[in-house]
Amino acid sequence: MSQPISTKPPSGMRDFLAADVVRRRHVLAVVQRVYESFGFVPLETPTIENLGTLLGKYGPEGDQLLFRVLHRREKLQRALAAGAVGELDLADEGLRYDLTVPLARVVANHRDLPAFFKRYAIQPVWRADRPAKGRFREFYQCDVDITGTRSVVADAEVCGAVAQVLRELGFSDFRLLCNHRALLRALVAEAGIPPAHEALALVVLDKLDKVGVDGVQRELADKGVPAAQSGALLRLLAEAREAGALARRAAGDGAGAEGARELLALFAAAGGGPAAAHLTFDPTLARGLGYYTGPIFEIACSDLAGSLGGGGRYDGLIGMFGKQPIPAVGFSLGLERILLVMEERGMFPPLGIGPQVLLCRLPDVTAAAAIGVATALRAQGLRVEIYADEAKLGTQLQYANKVAAPFAAILGGDEVAAGTVALKDLHTGEQVVLRVAEVGARVSRAHLPPR
Amino acid sequence: MSQPISTKPPSGMRDFLAADVVRRRHVLAVVQRVYESFGFVPLETPTIENLGTLLGKYGPEGDQLLFRVLHRREKLQRALAAGAVGELDLADEGLRYDLTVPLARVVANHRDLPAFFKRYAIQPVWRADRPAKGRFREFYQCDVDITGTRSVVADAEVCGAVAQVLRELGFSDFRLLCNHRALLRALVAEAGIPPAHEALALVVLDKLDKVGVDGVQRELADKGVPAAQSGALLRLLAEAREAGALARRAAGDGAGAEGARELLALFAAAGGGPAAAHLTFDPTLARGLGYYTGPIFEIACSDLAGSLGGGGRYDGLIGMFGKQPIPAVGFSLGLERILLVMEERGMFPPLGIGPQVLLCRLPDVTAAAAIGVATALRAQGLRVEIYADEAKLGTQLQYANKVAAPFAAILGGDEVAAGTVALKDLHTGEQVVLRVAEVGARVSRAHLPPR
Repeated sequence: MSQPISTKPPSGMRDFLAADVVRRRHVLAVVQRVYESFGFVPLETPTIENLGTLLGKYGPEGDQLLFRVLHRREKLQRALAAGAVGELDLADEGLRYDLTVPLARVVANHRDLPAFFKRYAIQPVWRADRPAKGRFREFYQCDVDITGTRSVVADAEVCGAVAQVLRELGFSDFRLLCNHRALLRALVAEAGIPPAHEALALVVLDKLDKVGVDGVQRELADKGVPAAQSGALLRLLAEAREAGALARRAAGDGAGAEGARELLALFAAAGGGPAAAHLTFDPTLARGLGYYTGPIFEIACSDLAGSLGGGGRYDGLIGMFGKQPIPAVGFSLGLERILLVMEERGMFPPLGIGPQVLLCRLPDVTAAAAIGVATALRAQGLRVEIYADEAKLGTQLQYANKVAAPFAAILGGDEVAAGTVALKDLHTGEQVVLRVAEVGARVSRAHLPPR
Repeated sequence: MSQPISTKPPSGMRDFLAADVVRRRHVLAVVQRVYESFGFVPLETPTIENLGTLLGKYGPEGDQLLFRVLHRREKLQRALAAGAVGELDLADEGLRYDLTVPLARVVANHRDLPAFFKRYAIQPVWRADRPAKGRFREFYQCDVDITGTRSVVADAEVCGAVAQVLRELGFSDFRLLCNHRALLRALVAEAGIPPAHEALALVVLDKLDKVGVDGVQRELADKGVPAAQSGALLRLLAEAREAGALARRAAGDGAGAEGARELLALFAAAGGGPAAAHLTFDPTLARGLGYYTGPIFEIACSDLAGSLGGGGRYDGLIGMFGKQPIPAVGFSLGLERILLVMEERGMFPPLGIGPQVLLCRLPDVTAAAAIGVATALRAQGLRVEIYADEAKLGTQLQYANKVAAPFAAILGGDEVAAGTVALKDLHTGEQVVLRVAEVGARVSRAHLPPR
């Protein structure tokens, strides 16, 4: 213990002091209220999952980003003695990587859930990504999912729920980008890209908004997709964006046409709800994750590289847990990105935290008497801190400013005897003597400043 | 992926479905409100901490119970190539073990905090304990701490805050046990136990309520403390419990007497607040953790082996982070134990969750029209689920019962055209046709049943 210990959080992790916490809570309270208004119910799953649950769901890149929990005691010693050569020998548990795979596990585990399980989840996830500005290793996701139905109502409702969250937070200029995996796969095939390269093409295409057309073509070429094929794909994607192209495709045959019809049905259904003004067909939207099977979604917001959230239909994932296949669709909002934009744009209302009243104690007042008055004030619904040490009144009032308390209640022996306090408004400087029972009404009446 | 994956959470971990989540939230909302009423502000620290932060704070047993995060990629390969022989070679990060050590790190890291940092934290912690009934590997703690002062006001306020939480949750029969480390150390010395055995004696004594007097003497004997010494200690502890013994000791000299005086001052101060009726001097209370330096606390509740929470003064811990020493005192409530007792005693009020209205759609209604009506109902503050599939009305109403919705709103083409719904009270069976705009008032007026 002789050398100083670092007092910083680990790389990519953050401490949230009160001002951060209340902003995070403000957003999460809106998310929770809106998700519940759509009839979703909460689910919380553990931080640690068996690696058997996590591995193979996020692609090889995802598996590499899992935080794994080291074996302990005998199990660790046995692994080392047997000549451990890698991660799988040293860990069989890892930290939650998203909220969708744990949901799939829970749905597979519980046979008594309603036919449609509408759950929301607001929890942190962990990814051992290289930390960067705005990219963290611990971050919150806010998910809604509906399992047990292929109905377009479900797809439209998850889109409506996230759109309503963003609207109630004060966002108006976001687009809810939609595409369909079957449509995208049809275009990949039409471009002459063989099925073996399809997954690769989607992963690379997902980076289009970051690296541009040239970047996509270059990366595809590096990975063995000839320029003729990638050029054809990019041309088909550009055509797909033209007016009427989606309707024309929906009139055709095959899986791509079926996907186009599903998208049109989604636009029609979601058009009845809060997503209406935000729905945007984007034929280049790919989504990196492998498990999507139908419509896919992403929230785009001007000023922001990357998205505020994304989702889609994944009818195969729950079946991977060895029980019958169960269709599902979901949408995930990223808390950290939302906070980032709201901070940049000054979208937070005044959020009060900390004591409303600092109780200042003069030397002739016992600790018990001060605590008695504080107890009476708290019973009136006030947030009250007692200045802990014995100190001059000036020191105590300075501290009241430091903790941004709008009022100081000054308590001397005379006030204790009379059942009063001297209540000082720290913004106006005005001071009045009030009965203890009157303080709550006086403080609540005051216009509290933003912090 | 061919063999079925386990769908259970890992050993000692739990999934919380909606009914669990709302009970947990009910308790945490009271904790948060009461802690804030005492002027505490929230702090959230990351799940993952550097092992340098965690190791050496909880004693050797605690170090063994840490979840450690396995090195990744090159770092892991280097460690294995260099012949890793144990945990320290394979990990330099671990999961949060309590909320006190991260607080100490944060206080040492931030020089701009108020002179007294009053923070609360409500977060999960992880301990690789052997799972047992009521003992989990992931569980929530609810802590209040005040740093920067040695004042008895701080000790009394943390006791008052946890007492008020328990009272507002409906507990009345709990005792807030208090002792003082200096008092206890004086008794250990008087019993003839040498300083080298003092820490050991406290750890064993901490198990007194579980293993009894004989168990303590046996374990102390096993660890090299002669029966004469342990017998003398137990005799002194019994005497210390007699009426007037604390006051007599407070009149004496030395660190033990100083501890007794501090305890009497604490009783006097806290007597002015909500802890008053619960304060109980218990000279055998030891607390296992090594870092306590002054008063120590624990909540005892009839019906419950073990405690609902504990705490104490730890004036040395923050200084371990290599900066100047900063005194501190805190109290931690254990959420899981509180929930256990509240469930056994039926202390929860009715807690509503899930849809208040299931919107049932007849075949002549489009998805868009149903979503339009749901949107209007949600704007009235209602929680509304749309039955997703196309199905007979009877099937839809059965589902309404399954999700415990108190009302069904039945929507056919006629209702859509008229701007109405047929609202069916699923408890009385009564059905009325209402304008969509009237539904919110009607549902809110209904007596909602407990779930």
